[in-house]
Amino acid sequence: MQYQFSKRMESLQPSLIREILKSTSDPEVISFAAGNPAPNAFPVEELTRIITDILHHDPIAALQYSVTEGYPALREACKRMLETHYHISTKDNDLIVISGAQQGADLAAKALVNEGDTVLCEDPSFIGCLNCFRSYNCNLVGVEMEEDGINTAKLEQAILQNPRVKLLYLIPNFQNPTGITTSLAKRREILRIAKAHNLVILEDNPYGDLRFAGEPVPSLKSMDTDGLVIYNGSFSKILAPGLRVGFVLAPAPIIAKMTVGKQCADVHTNILTQIACERWLATCDLDAHIARISEIYRQKCQLMLDCIDREFAPSIAHTTPEGGLFLWCTLPEGADMMEFCRRAVEKKVAVVPGFAFLADQRNPCRSFRMNFSTPTDEAIEKGIKLLGALTHTMF
Amino acid sequence: MQYQFSKRMESLQPSLIREILKSTSDPEVISFAAGNPAPNAFPVEELTRIITDILHHDPIAALQYSVTEGYPALREACKRMLETHYHISTKDNDLIVISGAQQGADLAAKALVNEGDTVLCEDPSFIGCLNCFRSYNCNLVGVEMEEDGINTAKLEQAILQNPRVKLLYLIPNFQNPTGITTSLAKRREILRIAKAHNLVILEDNPYGDLRFAGEPVPSLKSMDTDGLVIYNGSFSKILAPGLRVGFVLAPAPIIAKMTVGKQCADVHTNILTQIACERWLATCDLDAHIARISEIYRQKCQLMLDCIDREFAPSIAHTTPEGGLFLWCTLPEGADMMEFCRRAVEKKVAVVPGFAFLADQRNPCRSFRMNFSTPTDEAIEKGIKLLGALTHTMF
Repeated sequence: MQYQFSKRMESLQPSLIREILKSTSDPEVISFAAGNPAPNAFPVEELTRIITDILHHDPIAALQYSVTEGYPALREACKRMLETHYHISTKDNDLIVISGAQQGADLAAKALVNEGDTVLCEDPSFIGCLNCFRSYNCNLVGVEMEEDGINTAKLEQAILQNPRVKLLYLIPNFQNPTGITTSLAKRREILRIAKAHNLVILEDNPYGDLRFAGEPVPSLKSMDTDGLVIYNGSFSKILAPGLRVGFVLAPAPIIAKMTVGKQCADVHTNILTQIACERWLATCDLDAHIARISEIYRQKCQLMLDCIDREFAPSIAHTTPEGGLFLWCTLPEGADMMEFCRRAVEKKVAVVPGFAFLADQRNPCRSFRMNFSTPTDEAIEKGIKLLGALTHTMF
Repeated sequence: MQYQFSKRMESLQPSLIREILKSTSDPEVISFAAGNPAPNAFPVEELTRIITDILHHDPIAALQYSVTEGYPALREACKRMLETHYHISTKDNDLIVISGAQQGADLAAKALVNEGDTVLCEDPSFIGCLNCFRSYNCNLVGVEMEEDGINTAKLEQAILQNPRVKLLYLIPNFQNPTGITTSLAKRREILRIAKAHNLVILEDNPYGDLRFAGEPVPSLKSMDTDGLVIYNGSFSKILAPGLRVGFVLAPAPIIAKMTVGKQCADVHTNILTQIACERWLATCDLDAHIARISEIYRQKCQLMLDCIDREFAPSIAHTTPEGGLFLWCTLPEGADMMEFCRRAVEKKVAVVPGFAFLADQRNPCRSFRMNFSTPTDEAIEKGIKLLGALTHTMF
C-alpha cells in the first residue's frame, strides 16, 4: 500500500544528532556529540531508596491512573522551588507536570501555533525543539545569536517581517548548542519587545542549575509582569533524564489549554517517577546537590577548554560557557566544516555539525557543537588531541 | 495579555470523564464513571522486586537518556508476545515503545492526518482518542455501532461521503464505552473495505487480554496482509497504567514517521519502567497472570450484571460484555438521559453520560457508561440498588 503522510511529517527528518549517536555506538569512537548528563551526577542511592520505599508503602498510588495535571504534591513542590530558588512568582500562573521539557515545547506549540504561523528562535538553537515546531508546519525563523544572546534589533525586524508571529523560543542559560548566556540587558529588551508585539515567549531552562562560573542572571519569567512567558523546567539535568519528568509554569489560561493538549497526547506522566521526584525534592539538600553536580561540570568544561587551548590551531574560535553541557567551536573563514566533521569521524571522534541547529539548515555554517558532560576525562584529552591534530592539518 | 490560541485547541474541552472524576473525589460518591483497572490486578510484589533489582544492578541504564524507538529488549519482547499470543506476524512491520497507547493515537494522527482530513470512528467511541483526533482539527465522523461492531454498510457510505478519509479508528475487543466485541465476519468486511478504499486502520486493543467469556476473535492486524493496520497495545490493563507504557506495531514506513513524531513529542518513554516491563515479561507466567486478572473482571462484571437484572426497571437495556472494563446501558425511548445522570449524582452515584463518547456530542443519546473494574463489590451492590430505585421512579 502507498501511504499518504501528513504535510507536517512529509519532510521532517529524525534529529541528526540522534542519528549520529546511533552511528557512534562503535565503542572506539570518542563522542563529543551527545548531550547526556554525567552519570556520576545521578543521585543513584537516594533514588533507589525513594522508589523502593514508594513501591513498598504506597504501590497502588504509584501504579494506578492519575490526573493529567500531575501529582499534586509535586506541582506544589515545583512551585515552591521556582519561588525560593529562582524568585519566580507563581501568582496568576499555573504549573503542570510534563513528560520531560520537550513536551512543554510540544504543548506550547499545540496551544498557540496554527499551520503557517511564525515561530522565532535563536539561530542556532536546540534541534529537538526546532523539529517539534516544524512538526506543526509553522514558519520557523532563526534570529542571529550574539555573544550575549539573540540580536534584539534583528528580533524586532523578524517580528515585523513575518506573518502571525506567535511564539519566541529562547534558552537564556548556557544555550544548547552554543553555551551562551543571555545578558540581563538583553533579557529586559526581549521582554520589552515581546510586550510591544503581544508575543508569547517560551523560556526553556533545562541547564539553568548547572552554573559553574559567573553570576546568576534573573530568568525572563521572574521579570514577567505581563503574562508573556511560558517557563519550561526539567528534572533531566538535576536528577535524571531517563525518568522523563519536567514541568511548565505559565499564565493560567495557557496552562489550561496545554493541559487539554497533554490529555490528548499521553493522558498523564508516569506517576511512580512523579512521586519519586516529589520525595527527592522533599528529602534532598537541593543546594548541596546542585553545588556537587555543578562542580562535576565545571571540571569537565575546564578540562575541555584547557585541551582546546593547548591542542587546537589558534584560528579556531570557541565559546567559554558559564554552565551547562556544551561549547561551540567555529572554524576560520572559508573552512569546510562538514569536511572537518567527516575527517574527525574517520579519526574516531564525533562532533555535531553546526548546521543541524539552524532554523534553515541550508544556511552556511562553520561551527560545530562539543559536549563535555558525557565523555570521561581520558576521552576528552585523547579526543581533543586528535581533533587538534586535524585542525593543524586543515587550517 | 489576550492570548490567541490555535484553531485546533480553541474549542477542545477537557475530557468530560476526567472532569466528572474530579468532582467524584467526594468519598461518599460511588463512582461507576472511572476506567481504572482493579488495584488487586496489579502484580505489586513482582514489580517491586523487578524495579528494585534494576536500580541496584543497572541504575545508569535506567536513569540516562535512551533512544526514541524504545528499549531494544522490550521491543523484541513485545514482538514475540504479538507473534506467540496473538498470531500477529511482525514481518514488514516495525514496533516502537510509546508512553501509553494514547500516544499511539496521537502519533498516528500526527503522521497521517492533515487539518480537514476525515477520521472515522465507531459511534460511540473512546473519548480520549476522539479528543486526540479533534486536536488535529480533523473532520471526525462517527459510524453507527451495532451489537457485533460498526455498521459496515454505513462505514462504506461514510468513506464515499467525506473528503480525504485518512484513518479508521476501531476498538474491536470489549469496546470502550459499549463493551461490544466486533465479530469475525465484520472484521473481515472491515479489512475488505479498508483495502478497497486505501484506508489505514488504527486498531486499538488495550482490553483484548481481559476476555472472561466467549471465544477469542482474531485481531484485524493478524489478518492484515496489505499493510493496512496500525496495532496499538498497552501495558496499562495487563500490568499497570501509572507506568504509561504501550507499544505500536505498524508497517515500517508508518513507524518511521511515528518515531520522528515521538522524538518531537517526548524524546523517549521513561526508561526505568520500559526495562521493568521487559523484565516482567521475561520472568512472569503471562498466561497465568492474564487468567488471574480476567477472573477478577469476570466476577466483577457478573456481579454488576446480576445486580442490574435484579434492580433496574426492565425497560433499561444493557450490553453483556465478554471482557474489558465497561458495559453500556440504554434508557427507554423518550427518556431524558442527562436528567437521569444528574439525579444519579444527587443520590451519590456517578455514571458517564453517553453523549460524551459521540463523534458529534450534539447528537441525541439515551445511554450511559458503567465501569465495573474500579468499584468494590460492596459499592457495586449499593450503587446499582440506588440507580435501580431511580429507574423505577423515572421509567
